[in-house]
Amino acid sequence: MSDNTEKLKELLAEVIDLRNAAALLSWDQHTYMPPAGAEARGQQLATLGKLAQIKFTSDEVGRLLEDLKSEFKGIDEYTDDAALVKVTARDYDKAIRVPPEFVAEQARVTSKALEAWVEARKKSDYSIFRPHLEKVVELIKRYITFFPPSDHSYDVLLDDYEPGMKTADVIEIFNTLRPKQVELIKAIARQKPINDKFLHGDYNQNKLVDFAIGIATQFGYDWNRGRQDRSPHPFSTSFSMNDVRITTRFEPHAPINTLFNTMHESGHALYEQGVHPSYERTTLMGGASLGIHESQSRLWENLVGRSLPFWEYFYPAFKKKFSSHVGNISLKSFYKAINKVEPSFIRVEADEATYNLHIMLRLEIEIGLAQGEMDVKDLPEIWNSKMKGYLGITPPNDAKGVLQDVHWSGGSVGYFSTYALGNLISAQLWEVINRDLPDLDDHIRKGSFEPLLTWLREHLHVHGRKYEPQVLVQKITGSKINPTAYVKYLTRKFGEIYNL
Amino acid sequence: MSDNTEKLKELLAEVIDLRNAAALLSWDQHTYMPPAGAEARGQQLATLGKLAQIKFTSDEVGRLLEDLKSEFKGIDEYTDDAALVKVTARDYDKAIRVPPEFVAEQARVTSKALEAWVEARKKSDYSIFRPHLEKVVELIKRYITFFPPSDHSYDVLLDDYEPGMKTADVIEIFNTLRPKQVELIKAIARQKPINDKFLHGDYNQNKLVDFAIGIATQFGYDWNRGRQDRSPHPFSTSFSMNDVRITTRFEPHAPINTLFNTMHESGHALYEQGVHPSYERTTLMGGASLGIHESQSRLWENLVGRSLPFWEYFYPAFKKKFSSHVGNISLKSFYKAINKVEPSFIRVEADEATYNLHIMLRLEIEIGLAQGEMDVKDLPEIWNSKMKGYLGITPPNDAKGVLQDVHWSGGSVGYFSTYALGNLISAQLWEVINRDLPDLDDHIRKGSFEPLLTWLREHLHVHGRKYEPQVLVQKITGSKINPTAYVKYLTRKFGEIYNL
Repeated sequence: MSDNTEKLKELLAEVIDLRNAAALLSWDQHTYMPPAGAEARGQQLATLGKLAQIKFTSDEVGRLLEDLKSEFKGIDEYTDDAALVKVTARDYDKAIRVPPEFVAEQARVTSKALEAWVEARKKSDYSIFRPHLEKVVELIKRYITFFPPSDHSYDVLLDDYEPGMKTADVIEIFNTLRPKQVELIKAIARQKPINDKFLHGDYNQNKLVDFAIGIATQFGYDWNRGRQDRSPHPFSTSFSMNDVRITTRFEPHAPINTLFNTMHESGHALYEQGVHPSYERTTLMGGASLGIHESQSRLWENLVGRSLPFWEYFYPAFKKKFSSHVGNISLKSFYKAINKVEPSFIRVEADEATYNLHIMLRLEIEIGLAQGEMDVKDLPEIWNSKMKGYLGITPPNDAKGVLQDVHWSGGSVGYFSTYALGNLISAQLWEVINRDLPDLDDHIRKGSFEPLLTWLREHLHVHGRKYEPQVLVQKITGSKINPTAYVKYLTRKFGEIYNL
Repeated sequence: MSDNTEKLKELLAEVIDLRNAAALLSWDQHTYMPPAGAEARGQQLATLGKLAQIKFTSDEVGRLLEDLKSEFKGIDEYTDDAALVKVTARDYDKAIRVPPEFVAEQARVTSKALEAWVEARKKSDYSIFRPHLEKVVELIKRYITFFPPSDHSYDVLLDDYEPGMKTADVIEIFNTLRPKQVELIKAIARQKPINDKFLHGDYNQNKLVDFAIGIATQFGYDWNRGRQDRSPHPFSTSFSMNDVRITTRFEPHAPINTLFNTMHESGHALYEQGVHPSYERTTLMGGASLGIHESQSRLWENLVGRSLPFWEYFYPAFKKKFSSHVGNISLKSFYKAINKVEPSFIRVEADEATYNLHIMLRLEIEIGLAQGEMDVKDLPEIWNSKMKGYLGITPPNDAKGVLQDVHWSGGSVGYFSTYALGNLISAQLWEVINRDLPDLDDHIRKGSFEPLLTWLREHLHVHGRKYEPQVLVQKITGSKINPTAYVKYLTRKFGEIYNL
């Protein structure tokens, strides 16, 4: 290792320490912090964020990166140290483009926008949120101007979450996907609805959480390097590859979601627990992109957790534990119930067949706003007409429509599509995994997830942020991100379930 | 507020944010952190500590303090801004005297010494710890040389925990106290031992913790600005005056300690919750000294929590809840049992009458080491002979003797005496409180702690670190720290209990 590399790692280690400390403060805020602690916590987070930013964007880091770029010229960009320089330079180049005053202004605007959004959603009154969203969109447009012009102004936003991914690629993917998913749900709508009443009973919260933790343990979640807590919104977070945590939410109106939420967050956590230990305290720690991260959570939640082999193993125990709810429900009926397709207003409650349509709707609106082709004032109407077009339903009010997601209030424009990309990637991976592990279903049927986790570790997790998402998917599956595998998966799975 | 004051507060706010963030990381380490997270956590804490130190000892802070000292010349040093400058300058002057290399060396030495101490205590083998303790003592002696010469070399160490307090004062106080306490426990030893067998049963852990939380709530602990968790060693900590937490330990061999531990930590927490809100994010936040802090914890634990009026209120509920243990035990017998005096080897388990003797023994050894009048190799022998002299018992091994406390392994020399000073101060305060609130016992007998808490808030808590401990005690009680009130308290209380 060159002196420069060593020096860079030293500087990065402090930046990462600050970011990880901030992540713990944030975890605590969502789990255990007493209510009155919020103001001081906000100040502490702001201070840590500011110091991390100052340290990361220092001239010293800039000079080192310049020197190292020359030093590593001609060397395979995916050797560890070369990749470290590349990824760090990518982050650095972005970070120095955005003026600190802009960051401060965005913090102020979004803090007020968040408050307004909470009130607007509560009252289902878009007019409360609209002026704030207008300011947010103005900031987003200004943010784009800090970067060199690209084919598509939305590229700048997307690139923050899916490095190297282009808006044109996403649009092309979604254009292929959309008609197939619309067609599928129309065909399903013509079939007899599945009965899932028994999933909505008065399940015991602690027993469900225990069952969920049991599943995560069987997946291979390393509790020596992680833990599980409750929070109003489930999430996963990490402060080192040896401290990766998840939270679980219990939803009284949909208790079974406790299991799927936990599997979802475990998928994220297994990824972070599997990154190469030598990337600790460097910018290579973490996931390649939000889309790749989501591929892991969705893989464990859906391709594993909503599969028949999975429940062939777990259902006997589940039935025994929750006999008053599912004592006389067959495995087949249970399996169908947890996969019931039903167009609904709320994205986070959507089933596998309809979920991506929620995403496409948002992406189209985000692009429209970024390009200046849509006006904030028209969003409720645009939203509702797209819902009608894609899902065949019209929200009864804006709380269940355009006001449902928190993201825009926080200035987070550009990452909805990663949720859908994650689904596509998970299916692409699944095809390759099943080719490499032809008896995977049998393993799952026996409750053995070790071959699957080992495969994911070796092919994906270990690389952390080293590869750009498209490069990584290409390397593992032989193709770029595309919807073929996912469409095939959906068609077969729901074709069977709904006798299409 | 002058521009300089404002600027100073701005700089301090960031330092305090970093320290509070570190305190949360430390809280998490002792409560929820998964085992494998320790290494990364150590690095994060080191980074936060280093950055806080760099920011605090910056030339800018130094210059501002110089300017402000001139600016505030002639102004009452106990007005808020003047006190801020004075306290900050005191901290600053100490911080800049100690070279960073020394801090780093001390961290290395004590980290190894801690490991050695753990092993030595486990094996009860002083020879494992001795070479490390020798290094620690060498560092302590070097540390003293960074400061201007004082009457007593131990003054430097003591001053870090009890600002302004002199070794000579402590020695004088202890010289008065020692013979009285020795005499008292000798008199008690001649009486019939108290039966406390019923306190050592198989108490239900959760029920005891719930009861303890109930007491803390009744004391006035504001849960909107705090919380309680479990940890191997009970402690209190704060990240703002609006987020002050305690932890509780359940000890199977002494379950009743759960109650007293919780009252003790609540006492610390009530102090921090009561500091003036305008001191938030400044060096005036927190307690005046360790001794003053301990006066609060011991006051709630002992003067309140081991008093008869307290149990006149709580015992009926306790008896009902734990009827299988104390169903046929009278209030009087229970009260005597929780106040049983019995010389024992372990400080943290000592009763009120013997506790201070443990402290004196340690102080004498610390002074001996700091002055170079005692040799590390002789400590076990010195320890045992002092134990025999003060408490009349000889430890069966070094694990129960010289190896029992963790403090020295961490380089913490100078603060044992604050534990004893806390006891003395609590009794001094108690006399004044009872003069100001003549019906305090009646209030406590009715479970009303509001008058007491209000008094403590107004007279003590609100001041934070503004006053030096001696000045504060003088201001509140009219005298400096002295043993008279405590001796009177002990003599009366145990005189009644033991019919002396």
